[in-house]
Amino acid sequence: MKETTDREIAFVNRIAGAFPRHPMQVNGIFEADSEVIALEGTQAPYLVVKTDGIHEEITGGLYKDPYLIGWMAITVTMSDLAATGAEPTGILLSLQVPRRYEHGWMQELQRGINEACSAYGTYILGGDTNYSPQISIVTTGVGFVNKPILRKGTQAGDLIYTTAALGAGNAFAYSLFFDASIHAFYKPLARMRESRLIREFASACIDTSDGLFPALSILAEINDTGLRFYEPLQSILSSEATSVYEKATLPAWFFLAGPHGEYELLFSIPRSRQEAFDEACSAAGLLPLLLGEATPDKQVSFITEDLAITCHPSEIANLYDLSGGDIQTYFNMLIRKHDQWCATKTDLLCKQKTLI
Amino acid sequence: MKETTDREIAFVNRIAGAFPRHPMQVNGIFEADSEVIALEGTQAPYLVVKTDGIHEEITGGLYKDPYLIGWMAITVTMSDLAATGAEPTGILLSLQVPRRYEHGWMQELQRGINEACSAYGTYILGGDTNYSPQISIVTTGVGFVNKPILRKGTQAGDLIYTTAALGAGNAFAYSLFFDASIHAFYKPLARMRESRLIREFASACIDTSDGLFPALSILAEINDTGLRFYEPLQSILSSEATSVYEKATLPAWFFLAGPHGEYELLFSIPRSRQEAFDEACSAAGLLPLLLGEATPDKQVSFITEDLAITCHPSEIANLYDLSGGDIQTYFNMLIRKHDQWCATKTDLLCKQKTLI
Repeated sequence: MKETTDREIAFVNRIAGAFPRHPMQVNGIFEADSEVIALEGTQAPYLVVKTDGIHEEITGGLYKDPYLIGWMAITVTMSDLAATGAEPTGILLSLQVPRRYEHGWMQELQRGINEACSAYGTYILGGDTNYSPQISIVTTGVGFVNKPILRKGTQAGDLIYTTAALGAGNAFAYSLFFDASIHAFYKPLARMRESRLIREFASACIDTSDGLFPALSILAEINDTGLRFYEPLQSILSSEATSVYEKATLPAWFFLAGPHGEYELLFSIPRSRQEAFDEACSAAGLLPLLLGEATPDKQVSFITEDLAITCHPSEIANLYDLSGGDIQTYFNMLIRKHDQWCATKTDLLCKQKTLI
Repeated sequence: MKETTDREIAFVNRIAGAFPRHPMQVNGIFEADSEVIALEGTQAPYLVVKTDGIHEEITGGLYKDPYLIGWMAITVTMSDLAATGAEPTGILLSLQVPRRYEHGWMQELQRGINEACSAYGTYILGGDTNYSPQISIVTTGVGFVNKPILRKGTQAGDLIYTTAALGAGNAFAYSLFFDASIHAFYKPLARMRESRLIREFASACIDTSDGLFPALSILAEINDTGLRFYEPLQSILSSEATSVYEKATLPAWFFLAGPHGEYELLFSIPRSRQEAFDEACSAAGLLPLLLGEATPDKQVSFITEDLAITCHPSEIANLYDLSGGDIQTYFNMLIRKHDQWCATKTDLLCKQKTLI
């Protein structure tokens, strides 16, 4: 669980706020995707560490395939290291599996873990394995960086990019829970390679592990900035998301609302660095997606289909938590929110988008 | 779960053996209490990391007090760092707690965590917190060391020490599960301070997190050595263990058999370094306990009360796993093992020790 909603932030603050901070820790609570600690007298002066677990995705039925569970366990943690610009040294694995799980299941889990480690050029350093009635998999990534990127640093006027088009995480969840006739492919890639370039230019970075609006909500709170999107949201959906978007005729913003993200990096580039950044991307063969620009308030303003909306991003990011984690309730809340927005407009086309 | 029994070793090998090793990882699987990775071009050339969880101790009812759970979550991981000689940088915490837990419970957990961090001069760097029906707490320790100590390195003839007298872990478990009239204090201390001295002299080190015989079983397998104890086992019991030992009139070896240890360091000192080690201990005010000497076979030979035993340490270490983790079954197996040993002797005093 990332801290993306007001209630979750309060929960994490209550836990983490009780502990004294390391005197050399660079980031405050919430201020970076990983923990960044200055080391004295070393060549790479920052140690970067991050612990993350896959729980809800398994217990909620989103990840059933053991290969995907293994792949994601590595990807979630590597993505957080990437968002701070760190080079991974390796990963520790804490695994709790039910005794009833078959050898074939474990082999698929291991294959997912191995292929992800190989894709990211990293290694399982060790771990802790137990039998438990409920499966749980927690990974801890360890790495180093010379110049870390934090979530904190975006200034009004900065340009906001993602590493690629968005929405695959929610498209996958929608196809799984609401329409078995749609097959949505989901195997996100932690953006290690892109991170090496982004860290040279970005003023701040966060991954979209929980979706775009939850990530924007955190950036807004930490930096006191908002985002004005340049293009309608349907134009920033990935091909997988667009495919589901078209078949399900849902508003585009549903795919960006969270809680299941796509593990792209969302980052801000000062305008003064834009030209150099674009040139470096071209040279490296990277095609980041320009979303818009940071604004001096905490509002996001966007167009989704025929609807122009301005709101605090937490208004969207909080919905999943307010639903109590129930998928059907959450979907109904998205629809209700969309209807509320439509009710303030006179556009009939808009209303036709809400399918109940 | 530490890997202390044949079956557990097979289980861990099956999991961990499926992953490629980091090319700069110093320790093989099982060869150190923590994972040790050589870093190029840094002042402290080894990164040391360790993930460990508290599961069975909570689900089995051994740790009920949230303060103790918090204290132990930090202690288990710091003890593994100490056993490799590492200086801790900090700890990551992965916490799953049931929603029903009250604020007071969480505060006590945090107090245990905080007091342990303070005792070891370390910090919570960050973590991951979730609600879950079942409590689970996994900690990852990160640190550095210039000259790591591994479990591998003991030579026949080396002297075998522990940082202090033993048996408190099993004494605590016995009092809890079998005799409520006995109150046994249990709050082990990871031996960070002792580690700084031991790492300058020791040929190998392991902690007794799972008890003495399980630790000896691993050292035996890794180093092809055994241990000849110099004194009867009742003389190496701690005051807490001795108190339960006397009230419960159980054989001394029961308290050293595992599975619940006391987190002392068990280490070997080459004879050529003994004098210098003793002097350094005196100067530092440390009083390690000399257990005996490493032998060129994989046998332990010891006296427990009137009984002289020679066996492979796994014969004792495996009993808990063979019991399937059931405490009453395990206790019966300890008694049966003792009776078997007694049956091979003619000493009547010995038989009187077995109370069924």
